[in-house]
Amino acid sequence: MARADEADRLDPLKAFRERFALPEGVIYLDGNSLGVLPAGLSAHMKDVVEQQWGERLVRGWNDAGWIDLPARVAGKIARLVGAKKDSVAVGDSTTINVFKVLSAALSLRPDRRVILSDRNNFPTDLYVADGLARLLGQGYELKLATADEMEDAIDENVAAVLLTEVDYRTGRRYDMAAMTKHIHDKGALAIWDLCHSAGAFPVHLDAAGADFAIGCGYKYLNGGPGAPAFLYIAERHVAHVAPALSGWMGHQTPFAFTENYTPADGIARMMVGTPPILSMSSLDRALDAFDGVDMALVREKSQQLCDRFIAEVEQRCPELELATPRDHDQRGSQVSFRHPEGYAVMQALIANGVIGDFRAPDILRFGMTPLYLSHADIVTAAEILERVMRERLWDQEIYRKRAKVT
Amino acid sequence: MARADEADRLDPLKAFRERFALPEGVIYLDGNSLGVLPAGLSAHMKDVVEQQWGERLVRGWNDAGWIDLPARVAGKIARLVGAKKDSVAVGDSTTINVFKVLSAALSLRPDRRVILSDRNNFPTDLYVADGLARLLGQGYELKLATADEMEDAIDENVAAVLLTEVDYRTGRRYDMAAMTKHIHDKGALAIWDLCHSAGAFPVHLDAAGADFAIGCGYKYLNGGPGAPAFLYIAERHVAHVAPALSGWMGHQTPFAFTENYTPADGIARMMVGTPPILSMSSLDRALDAFDGVDMALVREKSQQLCDRFIAEVEQRCPELELATPRDHDQRGSQVSFRHPEGYAVMQALIANGVIGDFRAPDILRFGMTPLYLSHADIVTAAEILERVMRERLWDQEIYRKRAKVT
Repeated sequence: MARADEADRLDPLKAFRERFALPEGVIYLDGNSLGVLPAGLSAHMKDVVEQQWGERLVRGWNDAGWIDLPARVAGKIARLVGAKKDSVAVGDSTTINVFKVLSAALSLRPDRRVILSDRNNFPTDLYVADGLARLLGQGYELKLATADEMEDAIDENVAAVLLTEVDYRTGRRYDMAAMTKHIHDKGALAIWDLCHSAGAFPVHLDAAGADFAIGCGYKYLNGGPGAPAFLYIAERHVAHVAPALSGWMGHQTPFAFTENYTPADGIARMMVGTPPILSMSSLDRALDAFDGVDMALVREKSQQLCDRFIAEVEQRCPELELATPRDHDQRGSQVSFRHPEGYAVMQALIANGVIGDFRAPDILRFGMTPLYLSHADIVTAAEILERVMRERLWDQEIYRKRAKVT
Repeated sequence: MARADEADRLDPLKAFRERFALPEGVIYLDGNSLGVLPAGLSAHMKDVVEQQWGERLVRGWNDAGWIDLPARVAGKIARLVGAKKDSVAVGDSTTINVFKVLSAALSLRPDRRVILSDRNNFPTDLYVADGLARLLGQGYELKLATADEMEDAIDENVAAVLLTEVDYRTGRRYDMAAMTKHIHDKGALAIWDLCHSAGAFPVHLDAAGADFAIGCGYKYLNGGPGAPAFLYIAERHVAHVAPALSGWMGHQTPFAFTENYTPADGIARMMVGTPPILSMSSLDRALDAFDGVDMALVREKSQQLCDRFIAEVEQRCPELELATPRDHDQRGSQVSFRHPEGYAVMQALIANGVIGDFRAPDILRFGMTPLYLSHADIVTAAEILERVMRERLWDQEIYRKRAKVT
């Protein structure tokens, strides 16, 4: 613990913890599922509800700038993912955004009929790809491969490769630039899901040559439960994409109420319906927690926290099997362990003040969020996990009973 | 005014005004664009943000019931639109929901290739239909007709007829039951857009035999700016619909994280991504304002308010031309007038404390919301409109300058 305290003393990010309203008595290692509440956000929402909505009413669209809110939020996210401001659009859910960029990608490769993805991708990405292929018919299909098989699986029939940069279960991370180059060499397009990347470490979409991306607002970006998601389209593609989900907010002149759809000139064409202003305002305010944050420092501390957690847990809990790559560069900002009773172990751990989560079939998942976690937190979490294992605190019926959401 | 005061004295709905936090000094005739803030909603949102999110964090999905929130909200809306609880799903925007139900309808009529809609339908409905037809190719197309031409336009090529029950500009209302019967007689499916119906008057989807419907959460339902929308699928169709937007929240077992998509048994299959809990919580709380409200009384008062406004304005402002049907049964809960300088007139009116809105090219639109408007409000609004017209208060450059959102 002395070394952890020393690391905390030297931590260049330690002051950022004050930007978050953390609950007492809890070590929160689940910011990769739902980010914490940023400080000041509640007061902001009170203003949005009472003043912007309650007092301004419909005038809020102009006076409170609601109509420009999605673009403002997009600008904040763009910086975090290495994109030009005009390459990012914010709105709808991640799932809907997968549909948007995947249909766009297919339209750019009309002679190819295969969507390729990772068998271990987050299921909603696979479901959307499958649903789109069924909707289109005409030979469209989704093919799956493992990460190790991926390069070989890309052939001349593949229109688009849909990959999540960081595996939601194991934390394994693709080399985005190298894989994108390989995808391009085969004439396909690269779609990157950044759900476990954006806000977790520096992302360089433009530099990596990515074609499309999507990502989540409620994990490392702390936008609140179900916060709006985002999408990215490389500048070279935007003008050539005809949105499959063509809504009035993506129209060149929404308030002309014209009969025919004309897409907006830029990335705004990917907007669809009226944006959810309350959820969008929360995400907007949450992103201010990244003001002045050097993402390279976030990555550095994330690796330190992950390394420390692996070392502490492996020493204390030999019955847990590391599921995350040991090599720094091959993982995101999480550590996962396997245990056959993983669900019960996690429930017992949560009951003892350390919140991580469980992913079927046997994964204990711990997300590292350097802006509000200390090295001491990590050691304490490992100590509590050790006690849960050694005293078999998890071996109770109440911890085996599955909740609706795991 | 004496008669208006007498009507207010006898108004069986007058007590419901207390369920809303109305701003001072404003008569709000734009609840058909953005509903007002319900009383107590701000306190509820503070609890959602600070306690449910801030304190419970990821546990909120189970402990605060977030995972069941969309279904709870759906139950509240179902009552207002004459539907079984299990026929309504809440989430995403109206525009996205148009895509969902339209793609579902086409899948039920695979031998037909035409989507028929009203040339004066709200543009986003037309844009979505056009986008879906382009995405599908294979001869799919959107055809348009006016309301008067509609019945004759339905032929054996029409798979689905997409109509908004109440015209957003004129307030003209289709006879839902009669038109649905006519659509069915031609072998097509009826999709009703209830954006200007739900919460405005009694809707009877099941009784009318409607196949599909969609509607808005932020107009007459007061859910807040950009509140989640809803969709309806008749019980007889649900099991036969394969969602085109197939996301994890519509999966039979979302938290089993299986590789293959299996739709949930019921209407839940139409859910897509993670629901926006802040915006959804706001809509949930807003719907409580309809607790114990007899929608037949709402309709009755709405007709009285509309009649009164028409009479007052026609007497005071002869230069305004009525754009709404004069017959009660042929209109929704709004009154519209035409004026060549309609935009400037509306801006001047707003500056003088009466908020309505403008719809291109020349429509002044006034929504009637009986739960929080009095007869006296209507007379006062007409008096102010009279002054704006008689003193030509609108004839100033500042009122002609178009804002981004009109």
